[in-house]
Amino acid sequence: MGDEKTFDTTQLALPPGPVDLTSIPTDGTPGFTGDKAAGEAALAAVAPELADLQERLWASREGGETRRILLVLQGMDTSGKGGVIRKALGLVDPQGLSIKAFKAPTAEELEHDFLWRVRKALPAAGHIGVFDRSHYEDVLIHRVRGLSSPEEVERRYDEITSFEQELVSEGVTVLKCMLHVGAAEQGKRLMARLDNPDKHWKFNPGDVDDRALWPQYQEAYEVALERTNHADAGWFVIPADRKWYRNLAVAALLRDTLARMDLQWPEADFDVQAERARLEALVVE
Amino acid sequence: MGDEKTFDTTQLALPPGPVDLTSIPTDGTPGFTGDKAAGEAALAAVAPELADLQERLWASREGGETRRILLVLQGMDTSGKGGVIRKALGLVDPQGLSIKAFKAPTAEELEHDFLWRVRKALPAAGHIGVFDRSHYEDVLIHRVRGLSSPEEVERRYDEITSFEQELVSEGVTVLKCMLHVGAAEQGKRLMARLDNPDKHWKFNPGDVDDRALWPQYQEAYEVALERTNHADAGWFVIPADRKWYRNLAVAALLRDTLARMDLQWPEADFDVQAERARLEALVVE
Repeated sequence: MGDEKTFDTTQLALPPGPVDLTSIPTDGTPGFTGDKAAGEAALAAVAPELADLQERLWASREGGETRRILLVLQGMDTSGKGGVIRKALGLVDPQGLSIKAFKAPTAEELEHDFLWRVRKALPAAGHIGVFDRSHYEDVLIHRVRGLSSPEEVERRYDEITSFEQELVSEGVTVLKCMLHVGAAEQGKRLMARLDNPDKHWKFNPGDVDDRALWPQYQEAYEVALERTNHADAGWFVIPADRKWYRNLAVAALLRDTLARMDLQWPEADFDVQAERARLEALVVE
Repeated sequence: MGDEKTFDTTQLALPPGPVDLTSIPTDGTPGFTGDKAAGEAALAAVAPELADLQERLWASREGGETRRILLVLQGMDTSGKGGVIRKALGLVDPQGLSIKAFKAPTAEELEHDFLWRVRKALPAAGHIGVFDRSHYEDVLIHRVRGLSSPEEVERRYDEITSFEQELVSEGVTVLKCMLHVGAAEQGKRLMARLDNPDKHWKFNPGDVDDRALWPQYQEAYEVALERTNHADAGWFVIPADRKWYRNLAVAALLRDTLARMDLQWPEADFDVQAERARLEALVVE
């Protein structure tokens, strides 16, 4: 258990085996014992650590390294994928972010394998890539709405695992977060969007259609999480009814992920003393 | 003159006509009378305004609009293009940013017109595009180092103006900022990078080579600023010796630019009452 200053993110890791999302409370705060105020303070405390670590990742690129991070954000409508990007990813240098929101595939994308557009959106060296929705839609909505045959969806679980293993072997650290919002909380958030004209642009009638398929989506998530919870890129399930907790959890996971990469400032590939002498000798104006 | 709470950004606009950069102090704080502490407080006060306005721009895209902003950042090495991105652009939702750092052109890029790679990097609807260096390098370094003939550089000034006018007519608001750092301050900043092993990755021996051409670069800037200071997209020259002022100035310019766009929340393109009824009638779990 964490105290009010630390966050034990290991508690968010999904254990191997069958997944029962109903057994994970959506309003919990696993790994963190503080309240909202403590959580906001903890997020503020994570900010400089995250900024420093991200700068080291960015610098590693100058040092010729090709390591990068891919953060996959999945979750039902209103679970807070956008909020996490604003509040947690917003803590680092935007230059080092590469954010891709996956919408319904275009006609061109549909002419390719489902991973084609995903590969094109992968982060470059030194970047933190963020997928707002991802290749997981191709097993979630496809299963729920029958957009692909059951055999094809079945095949994709393994293909996704292979794809992610390939990424890891190429130096991409894959961090997968499922934002686990409750049905009641989603209902409130959708209604809040309808109640406020300034938020109408965030609402889509399709969100209600999807909500009508809530049990089917939960089941599709359970299967997808189980089938793709491999050792190279395991899933983290983040209770998402409390926005402050959700933001802190993703920020802390990202911080821990970067810390484990043991990023060092690159060494100079030039003669420091010679450059100093050259600079000192140079009189300008 | 601004007081400690406001920033009169109109003072940063470059007047038409010949440009003499030596007449603009690099350590000034035009438009703002406060000190560093007041400047940092003012930046914190701009943050929520900027976030709100940027969200409206982002939302306008959902409403079918195609307006966007292109912020061009130019300046000598160490003038703080990266710092502005971190400290000023870092105040808005990173999802709505599209940041492009222009390096030496690739072999493929060299096979095209100089604007080819620039067009490819333009922001999409609802975005704030940020160019860290830009098509202006094609008249700056090209003039100083003779990478193109004088006739070709001459031709490009007009081509750049036409290009930017075309962008404006397509709904792109072009905001051009020259970060005006002094030679002495640059010398200190380069030396500080050499003095700190954690900053060696930011140093490039080519920076000293460019510094040796300081007067030529200043002259190239003066000509480029004068020739491309057109009514559709005028230049702002931002004294950049004080980092806090530079960050505040760009944030305030961006805020003012967004405010002038008079961005409204998009109206619902669905029947709000019908959706509310549908949502209320839906019992989940």
